[in-house]
Amino acid sequence: MRVLGVDPGLTRCGVGVVEGVAGRPLTMRGVGVVRTPPDAELGLRLVAIEQGIEQWLDEHRPEFVAVERVFSQHNVRTVMGTAQASAVAMLCASRRGIPVALHTPSEVKAAVTGSGRADKAQVGAMVTRLLRLDAPPRPADAADALALAICHIWRAPAQNRLQQAVALHSAKATHASKGRTA
Amino acid sequence: MRVLGVDPGLTRCGVGVVEGVAGRPLTMRGVGVVRTPPDAELGLRLVAIEQGIEQWLDEHRPEFVAVERVFSQHNVRTVMGTAQASAVAMLCASRRGIPVALHTPSEVKAAVTGSGRADKAQVGAMVTRLLRLDAPPRPADAADALALAICHIWRAPAQNRLQQAVALHSAKATHASKGRTA
Repeated sequence: MRVLGVDPGLTRCGVGVVEGVAGRPLTMRGVGVVRTPPDAELGLRLVAIEQGIEQWLDEHRPEFVAVERVFSQHNVRTVMGTAQASAVAMLCASRRGIPVALHTPSEVKAAVTGSGRADKAQVGAMVTRLLRLDAPPRPADAADALALAICHIWRAPAQNRLQQAVALHSAKATHASKGRTA
Repeated sequence: MRVLGVDPGLTRCGVGVVEGVAGRPLTMRGVGVVRTPPDAELGLRLVAIEQGIEQWLDEHRPEFVAVERVFSQHNVRTVMGTAQASAVAMLCASRRGIPVALHTPSEVKAAVTGSGRADKAQVGAMVTRLLRLDAPPRPADAADALALAICHIWRAPAQNRLQQAVALHSAKATHASKGRTA
């Protein structure tokens, strides 16, 4: 599967494309940052992010888009901007019918480092190793976007198994209730 | 001037179009709510809001879009959704080159009722009176959207005068500095 990871932000929106399946070596297809000037009007910054994300979707045709889930325990102003940038990324993907998955920062850290409380350096080091890169991607937002994509690829089988189990259970329950009413 | 006011929200996004100038009776051109199902995927809800806002822009061709400025002192989950819905509204307007203005809830309340701490009923009553309606628009989100549009129309002359003063001052300063260098 090919996944576009998006680490949302108004000033720097990290984007990274990873291809592969769980249990096999992964391949980086692209990494970068969509930037908008901090002194520009908010609406125009959102338009610039939309154009940037659209370019990445056009070029890489990902099957999934993984976006960092935004929490508001941090700095208020930053969080609003992050929520707005993430909305644009989700909108671009959903408009094309690409499934969007949200992963929390601790899920992503735990997926690539084994610890939900790993620091940025540790995440960068593991992304470099897992994708067999020469150096950690810069800035950290770009590395985080790749980590999101890796997290999604690795969590997908578990989520699929869970969905299958739920579907099976529902089917059995339906069958059982049909049995009772028959 | 014709202004589309947007009271952003994921479940109910209030929209209202008001036409007029400060100091003259105002006219309501339309009011409504863009709704999305709470159990739908977030990305699909944002797409639905985009489609709804686009319809309002197509139909009413506003010269300005006034959106409520989002703060995060309230409920965390609600605020994230509000920030994301407002991002979509700003994106739609800016993409068309329509200027977007943000007004805080207290600016809007102060504009239409004289008090920044007025309650919803008071805002609804004043919107009804100012637009000469038979009854307050329902739900409250729709009334709030109209209040935003009214606030924008009434604040615009002051903002324009301020901009003119700044422009005049800059021109004088440039002239003065040119004078010195000549």
